[in-house]
Amino acid sequence: MARKRKLARGVAVVGGGLTKLGLFKDRNCKDFFAEAYGEMIGSVDKGVDPKDIDAVYVGNFTNDFFVNQSHWAPIIADLLGQVPKPVTRTEGACASSALAFREGVLAIASGMYDMVLVGGFEQMSKCTTEEVAEGLAMAASPYEVATGFTFPAVFGAMATAYFAKYGATREALFNVTIKSHNNAPLNPKAQFPMTVRDFMNARIEKCRKKGEPVPDWKDEKDFLRDPAANPPVAWPMHLFDCCPISDGASCLLLVAEDLARNFTDTPVYLAGMGQGSGYSLHAKKDLTTYEATRAAAKEAYEMSGLTPRDVQFSEVHDCFSIAEIVHLEDLGFVKPGEGHKAVAEGMTRLDGPKPINTSGGLKSKGHPVGATGIAQLYEVWMQLRGKAGKRQVPNPNLRVGAAHNLGGTGGTCTFTILERR
Amino acid sequence: MARKRKLARGVAVVGGGLTKLGLFKDRNCKDFFAEAYGEMIGSVDKGVDPKDIDAVYVGNFTNDFFVNQSHWAPIIADLLGQVPKPVTRTEGACASSALAFREGVLAIASGMYDMVLVGGFEQMSKCTTEEVAEGLAMAASPYEVATGFTFPAVFGAMATAYFAKYGATREALFNVTIKSHNNAPLNPKAQFPMTVRDFMNARIEKCRKKGEPVPDWKDEKDFLRDPAANPPVAWPMHLFDCCPISDGASCLLLVAEDLARNFTDTPVYLAGMGQGSGYSLHAKKDLTTYEATRAAAKEAYEMSGLTPRDVQFSEVHDCFSIAEIVHLEDLGFVKPGEGHKAVAEGMTRLDGPKPINTSGGLKSKGHPVGATGIAQLYEVWMQLRGKAGKRQVPNPNLRVGAAHNLGGTGGTCTFTILERR
Repeated sequence: MARKRKLARGVAVVGGGLTKLGLFKDRNCKDFFAEAYGEMIGSVDKGVDPKDIDAVYVGNFTNDFFVNQSHWAPIIADLLGQVPKPVTRTEGACASSALAFREGVLAIASGMYDMVLVGGFEQMSKCTTEEVAEGLAMAASPYEVATGFTFPAVFGAMATAYFAKYGATREALFNVTIKSHNNAPLNPKAQFPMTVRDFMNARIEKCRKKGEPVPDWKDEKDFLRDPAANPPVAWPMHLFDCCPISDGASCLLLVAEDLARNFTDTPVYLAGMGQGSGYSLHAKKDLTTYEATRAAAKEAYEMSGLTPRDVQFSEVHDCFSIAEIVHLEDLGFVKPGEGHKAVAEGMTRLDGPKPINTSGGLKSKGHPVGATGIAQLYEVWMQLRGKAGKRQVPNPNLRVGAAHNLGGTGGTCTFTILERR
Repeated sequence: MARKRKLARGVAVVGGGLTKLGLFKDRNCKDFFAEAYGEMIGSVDKGVDPKDIDAVYVGNFTNDFFVNQSHWAPIIADLLGQVPKPVTRTEGACASSALAFREGVLAIASGMYDMVLVGGFEQMSKCTTEEVAEGLAMAASPYEVATGFTFPAVFGAMATAYFAKYGATREALFNVTIKSHNNAPLNPKAQFPMTVRDFMNARIEKCRKKGEPVPDWKDEKDFLRDPAANPPVAWPMHLFDCCPISDGASCLLLVAEDLARNFTDTPVYLAGMGQGSGYSLHAKKDLTTYEATRAAAKEAYEMSGLTPRDVQFSEVHDCFSIAEIVHLEDLGFVKPGEGHKAVAEGMTRLDGPKPINTSGGLKSKGHPVGATGIAQLYEVWMQLRGKAGKRQVPNPNLRVGAAHNLGGTGGTCTFTILERR
């Protein structure tokens, strides 16, 4: 049977919202969603009447576990004054809200609806760190968990395999971390709006204040090499290779392409989207590639008619620094084995030829798992509208951007390409 | 903005599978899904190559809680040999797999895919009864749970309100239970393939064997009136008003309408589908109606161009006996306040003018929450193909059937109308 990847009807993004990310133990994740929704309503240039929203899709990983409440759809419907409209939750671990975006697109493309709100949220701060680790383990494969592989360990194994195959070292990981953290202070929503140098200087200041010996770090890399500053988690993954635990919510407003200019003069259109599933560590033939990312990328490129070269910038799922390097390859931005070189050469910097994670990435912006997929797409939407402020990609002809989202240890991946026309 | 409810492309069901429902503590819910999938593959009259499946949607309520594993999409993909194709989980409490069906339909209708597998599964038997109650409480509203309302209590409050408003009594509930249990022995997949009379006779036999006094129940209703046989759970909900805890899995194979006859000469087409969200108990204006069901029904009828009269039979979500009565009204099968009379008069019997829950319903067939929505649609599909065996609706002109699925205490409801042409 011939595969079709052509939508019957185009879809555009005309509004978006994202909370500041961080740890907000005293708030309720409903509040986060209301905050993101409020920003979204205000962001629609020509205004929108919430009564015109036909349906809602929300991504959430495991609030069942994190806050002891499942079945968020009616809670969100009530919160937004949208009862009795349809609200659907999607779950794909850390890719949960990218799936909500995708289902929102399909709902409009099918002709069923004209306007769909898509969003995501997660509250991870109400648990202890041990409980969060237990919750996240449920996103990994049961085979991985049963054999003692935590998340950092799975990505550590991939990094080790990558190093062995391509001759890279931890220095390659430092480049990813330093680059992403350079973008974070430019993003007012970031959980850690600090460069690695800021962390280093803060540590030096602390030593001075306490009257302790001041380390003689020459530069950021020297700081990251020091296990006292950057302790190992699961070798070669160290503290600065791992994204944080976060709270937050995100949303986007989708409308049928033909209606987009009723809401804004700068709509951002869906060009292509793809989704793939992947094997657990024990069944993977090659630890240096994600088959789910490759499948998602293939689907998205085919639908859009675009190539990796056409994608001018991208958010790439960097739950661990090694993931960003491998995904650069799987998304076709560089050839296999060349991801670490491209990062070292500055390709992915904000002022480089293909900026990656202009938001600061999961590492420094934060990773409230259920909110992340749409938080990434929010960044792409902001950039394409030229609204990204100090972190705006310095390219006056910005037309095509993308977001790559990964769930679990690579079990679910999505790739979504947006464009201005 | 004008609401559109017309799909760009029709969708047909060409295969289905359902496990026997029950408590199977020693099995893994992966096994259930594999079993349902196997039956589905064998059910496609002209055969199907699993390689042609483009995508999978699975509904699951809270395996995070019940079996300590979330992110089932890649596990299912691997199980079915479908890596790296897209697999997406939907969650809407007890309506989780009706949402999977719906997203599968939209994926095909949008033009994205030609063939989609949709399914659902849940394993509830690995927990204690107390843990299941705790898990299910996460499907209710936090306001309900915080004030001490368990599931039977919420539906008990609705029954009390219904009795007060319409002058019905527990006798009306007995009629629902007796009717559904009459269908169960005709369904080889049912968890309790016993009529209420069978339960009564079994109890009498047990007394005889133990040498205890034999109760002098005159008939099934007399049996149900006896609190020794049918103890209260949350008045007026008694044991025989409440569906059981179950394990199981279900699936259906969907294809684009224009491809349906490549797979079978008796395709069953989607005529209409709707979904709604509802208020929590504290915010409801009227406890004798479900706004989510009404919204779902309106959407489905409008899409199909059909009326309640056109629906010849239906599965209706009977997690508690009162729910079936109220839904008969909300779905427009009878007027408000007349549901209890219609059941008493035999309208809903297998040989009545509008058979309801020919499968035995959740009460006697079983209710593995994540599997239920598609298990209901499986029954409608079987009936419309004339394959329902001893429980086949005795109408040679069966053309239109429907399934109504409810999540939580009414927070998410769906209504789906299928038809032969």
